[in-house]
Amino acid sequence: MITAEFLLELVQKTLSKIVLLVLDGIGGIPFKDGKTEIEFANTPNLDKVAGSGVCGMIDAVGSGITPGSGPGHLALFGYDPQKYLIGRGILEGLGIGLTLDKNSLAARGNFATMDKNKIITDRRAGRIATEKNIALCARIQKDISRIEDVEVIIKPGKEHRFVVVLHGEELGENLTDSDPQKEGRPANDIEALDEESKKSARVINMFIKSANNILKNEYPANTFLLRGIAKSPDIPNMQKLFKLTPSAIATYPMYKGLAHLVGMDILSVDGETIEDEILCLEKNYQKYDFFYVHIKKTDSAGEDGDFDKKVHAIEEVDKIIPRIFALKPDVLVITGDHSTPSKLRGHSWHPNPVILFSETCRPDGITHFCEKQCKTGGIGKIPAQELMALMLAHALKLEKYGA
Amino acid sequence: MITAEFLLELVQKTLSKIVLLVLDGIGGIPFKDGKTEIEFANTPNLDKVAGSGVCGMIDAVGSGITPGSGPGHLALFGYDPQKYLIGRGILEGLGIGLTLDKNSLAARGNFATMDKNKIITDRRAGRIATEKNIALCARIQKDISRIEDVEVIIKPGKEHRFVVVLHGEELGENLTDSDPQKEGRPANDIEALDEESKKSARVINMFIKSANNILKNEYPANTFLLRGIAKSPDIPNMQKLFKLTPSAIATYPMYKGLAHLVGMDILSVDGETIEDEILCLEKNYQKYDFFYVHIKKTDSAGEDGDFDKKVHAIEEVDKIIPRIFALKPDVLVITGDHSTPSKLRGHSWHPNPVILFSETCRPDGITHFCEKQCKTGGIGKIPAQELMALMLAHALKLEKYGA
Repeated sequence: MITAEFLLELVQKTLSKIVLLVLDGIGGIPFKDGKTEIEFANTPNLDKVAGSGVCGMIDAVGSGITPGSGPGHLALFGYDPQKYLIGRGILEGLGIGLTLDKNSLAARGNFATMDKNKIITDRRAGRIATEKNIALCARIQKDISRIEDVEVIIKPGKEHRFVVVLHGEELGENLTDSDPQKEGRPANDIEALDEESKKSARVINMFIKSANNILKNEYPANTFLLRGIAKSPDIPNMQKLFKLTPSAIATYPMYKGLAHLVGMDILSVDGETIEDEILCLEKNYQKYDFFYVHIKKTDSAGEDGDFDKKVHAIEEVDKIIPRIFALKPDVLVITGDHSTPSKLRGHSWHPNPVILFSETCRPDGITHFCEKQCKTGGIGKIPAQELMALMLAHALKLEKYGA
Repeated sequence: MITAEFLLELVQKTLSKIVLLVLDGIGGIPFKDGKTEIEFANTPNLDKVAGSGVCGMIDAVGSGITPGSGPGHLALFGYDPQKYLIGRGILEGLGIGLTLDKNSLAARGNFATMDKNKIITDRRAGRIATEKNIALCARIQKDISRIEDVEVIIKPGKEHRFVVVLHGEELGENLTDSDPQKEGRPANDIEALDEESKKSARVINMFIKSANNILKNEYPANTFLLRGIAKSPDIPNMQKLFKLTPSAIATYPMYKGLAHLVGMDILSVDGETIEDEILCLEKNYQKYDFFYVHIKKTDSAGEDGDFDKKVHAIEEVDKIIPRIFALKPDVLVITGDHSTPSKLRGHSWHPNPVILFSETCRPDGITHFCEKQCKTGGIGKIPAQELMALMLAHALKLEKYGA
């Protein structure tokens, strides 16, 4: 395995530019006319890039493993997804647009219902409306913004879900949940599982006590449960590891957050369409040497189980490929962070097709960008985390290893 | 990964014979008529071997990594190229034909110019003629052949380059360079970075002082700089790891040196042509069970950016294949240590095609030995270091693993 740490010894700063276009959840399985979404799609431009590039398949984590968006993207960014773990609380925080760093401790929260004996009777407070959730979070935030020297941020999600973030020094993350996981039990106190986490436990328990007091008359949301408490991982940034000046173009907060975690500049996209993202790429093309461009629509359509919508999203991406090509990136990579087959209505473990185009590649003569053809390509099937080595190599940013 | 250490438990000595034919830098990228050198070449004999053997692709070090000759060859010999590192001084020493072992410490040297304040004004002494270099090295060697109990050998390279080798006990290699890397600074003393390297530092600094005295009137070569000081790695030999009786047929010193490092007998080739090498193979065929045959011409042509010359070298190799075949080796492997695409005029990271022929292989029905066809072969794409397991297996030298 070629790791980020191994590359560190070989990589050098150059002027060459890399564009990594991530079609979220691109991979599929046959569903309509015996075809996957990309097999079905009419993609003359992607086919042309595939034909003149080198293709292959990538496994984000490994055989049979369905990656969440965190590991899926970290691997594409050249990081070992088994080494750098992003807690659910952190990912939820990123997902609602919070800026998190290594001093951030985040937890997922659920509003819940308890009876007068403090027994949890509904772990989701009857799935209260999002508007109610927003109002409750605002009330809590108004009264609680700091505990000891720790900043407390509470942000609503959808229905009964919210996120609590603590910002401060010496906040260990080795903690139990307050969520008892089943109804009919009381909420648990947060316990520190090591010395370093005692301050976190103390602060969170104080938060729970104060917030419960604020919520006492808000039946059915008269309490809440916390779980998945974790720190933002201390990930070495791409500047340091790969000597890149990286940037991210994405419209969804979570992907911006993930990109921020590895040191990318988050570029401001004026709008939400794929065209808006490409316009952003064109505008900023001179300023960076690495561009991560994230397309969400392919994944959303897959999650909806909507084959035609996913095909349409792919064809929409196809139309903008000539504009990326016109920028003449030294290396253009097109792939996905994981598969989202419409047939399965969710992320899956199937490897994703990848195209790498550069002047230094050994083309495969592929005629259509799809799983079936990409698996015959020269890249073979590799761990997604090795794509970074290939991108840097084709951008002529890697020195020879050994004499 | 199947490592040498894993094979150690399974391998047994048998009478079967393996020939590993290394076409240095064989892999290419499309350059003429959209073809690579081996795609372009007319190779009826290689094609026949490919068609009746099993094919694949190998990565010497890993995705995107351009190997030097050291890691490229160590991998082919079954060693982990990330585990066994060969310092530049050692490789240069091997390259000029020195015999090095685990008691050897080698450094690269440059003749240089310094002014009366001992400031380096030219790190290459105006690139003095090789003849001058030879004369200066001889003068130094005449006066200095031993310091304390350490033997000192100084050998000229080309222009201003030479190699200093110390042979002795307790010579640690954790040392700084004397080369200040930039002009306008004095040369540095060699410093030991650990206790074990103190003797080395002391001996080398004494050498520097004495040799500088010899050179004081030799302007512009009135001093010299040392760097890349390293020990010859302590590599377990192929006899021990693979129970082989290995031999090497090569015309260039560096490849003989690499082969010597892993325990091969270096066979004497009468001449420098590919035919001379094959004659040597024929003569010695009864005496060994493993033959490494190195062809340099393919790499040199690639380094020169000369597509036609590389094609010609491949076709020249093709002509002698029937002679190797006539020896009826139990296993014949034909591959490269790294790619050297004429288009890139140097080593590259692209995987290399490989053919393995034996009576026990499962042929792929390939019609032409080239990157495009080999990548569809039954070996798939594997780390080069796993080739040894395949060679030993097809030579029926490996026992079953587990009951």
